[in-house]
Amino acid sequence: MRCERLALLGCGLMGGSFALALRRAGLVGHVVSCGPDAAALAQALQLGVIDEISPSAAQAAAGADLVLVAVPVAAAEGVLAAVAPALGEHALLMDVGSTKHDVAAAARRVLGAALPRFVPAHPIAGKETAGVAHADAALFAGRHAILTPLPENPPELVQRAAALWEALGARVRCMGAAEHDAAFAAVSHLPHLLAYAYFDGVARQAAGSDFLSLAGPGFRDFTRIAASDAAVWRDILLANRDEVLRQAWHFREALDGFEALLRAGDAAALEDHIRQVAQARARWHLGAPPASSR
Amino acid sequence: MRCERLALLGCGLMGGSFALALRRAGLVGHVVSCGPDAAALAQALQLGVIDEISPSAAQAAAGADLVLVAVPVAAAEGVLAAVAPALGEHALLMDVGSTKHDVAAAARRVLGAALPRFVPAHPIAGKETAGVAHADAALFAGRHAILTPLPENPPELVQRAAALWEALGARVRCMGAAEHDAAFAAVSHLPHLLAYAYFDGVARQAAGSDFLSLAGPGFRDFTRIAASDAAVWRDILLANRDEVLRQAWHFREALDGFEALLRAGDAAALEDHIRQVAQARARWHLGAPPASSR
Repeated sequence: MRCERLALLGCGLMGGSFALALRRAGLVGHVVSCGPDAAALAQALQLGVIDEISPSAAQAAAGADLVLVAVPVAAAEGVLAAVAPALGEHALLMDVGSTKHDVAAAARRVLGAALPRFVPAHPIAGKETAGVAHADAALFAGRHAILTPLPENPPELVQRAAALWEALGARVRCMGAAEHDAAFAAVSHLPHLLAYAYFDGVARQAAGSDFLSLAGPGFRDFTRIAASDAAVWRDILLANRDEVLRQAWHFREALDGFEALLRAGDAAALEDHIRQVAQARARWHLGAPPASSR
Repeated sequence: MRCERLALLGCGLMGGSFALALRRAGLVGHVVSCGPDAAALAQALQLGVIDEISPSAAQAAAGADLVLVAVPVAAAEGVLAAVAPALGEHALLMDVGSTKHDVAAAARRVLGAALPRFVPAHPIAGKETAGVAHADAALFAGRHAILTPLPENPPELVQRAAALWEALGARVRCMGAAEHDAAFAAVSHLPHLLAYAYFDGVARQAAGSDFLSLAGPGFRDFTRIAASDAAVWRDILLANRDEVLRQAWHFREALDGFEALLRAGDAAALEDHIRQVAQARARWHLGAPPASSR
């Protein structure tokens, strides 16, 4: 499972954390990176996240037994295209993007003969603080890592990908790209959209800054994800737009229901409805299996 | 400032935490409580939160120099009415409710000559776990405590109320009831409504439990308040209905704006809009003064 040469294409929070986690597990030899942001690369070198800066993605990937694409979703296609001609026949190529239908489609467009080496991946981990300076070797410990394998992937390559994430402490689940994108529109992408909209709706009122000065711990947690990186979330929301809008529709239906009870002043029905939700949320725990499989 | 006899009318998380915080500060002698929930009172006695169970609110309040009403918002009027005839002329009467216009109106209806002794209060603190078993002497430390004094309050009584909350570690702010209710509709009541609606909108889908099993730390924090007590939040949302619906309108406006950018596929405008919000949220800190007063 140990990799001798990791090509890290994209050296931010996710890529940097992946390299650090591999290092801590003693599973990586040489780490080489490249990219347009020279300052970030220099910082990664200085922090010991990477060992070498390469002038191009193709040169970084040449001879690498593991290539990780960790750029914002919309940039993945360009990086995959640059890597394709240099990819070794035994290399494992993965991404870490939050949407999987679009990256599979991009891979089909540009990878050619290298397509079977690409195992799309999505570790369910993150922080609101972007950049390699916040990279964390423990970022993936105890988190899910979702793989959405392609029909072309050799089974042993998918097993290698799974074993790698497990070695970093993640719990691996395999599923289809469409299933992945629907689920994460519901539990991740929509909450980000709602948190951005909610904060915006308060902040732009005339008394917004006074209101905000009074906010407490509930507000802090509810809006934590509204500080998430703009370029990353622009790409995710656009790449998974149809599913996100579908989930927004479900949300509006539910909000309409609550508002109707409120307007009607129906205390008993409002309490019943809140109680059902509150009890279900109290039963939910991070990383628990679905109720249907218990 | 020390009180010899505290009548705790409502012995749940908030009331219990208030009693424990006063005890820890060495500011209370005897604590007496009463209420319909015999099991909760017995538990409070056993935990050392209270010293005595009284058969009625009037008997608990008789001779008390401090009376705290800590029941769900809709129950406050009944408790105030029961207390009114027994309240000593030097006693301080406070509540801890999350809405202040309604409790002031209730006090005017039922307190009579005791009205000037009532200083409406709202400590900005809480947990998703209700009940005296979760009472915490440190619940108010570092939090705001809002007072919305009545014109009838003697200034020295308001000062005594403020000093008491400050002795428990809270930072006191005085404001009008209408201003309070508008602000907390924005930063507390609406987020609870949105969190309930969001969780409901996911959970009731056919694939809801599968979706929920994949949710990560962002979801956990975004929905933490959706586990909040149903009776408490039924009352708050109904008592402050007009302001909550007004804030829901602002939220829908903001959400419409984000959805329009998403539908239009306008990546640049979407990124700009997200970035403005994310930067503002990153600058926000719990308990910081409003930008206008910095």
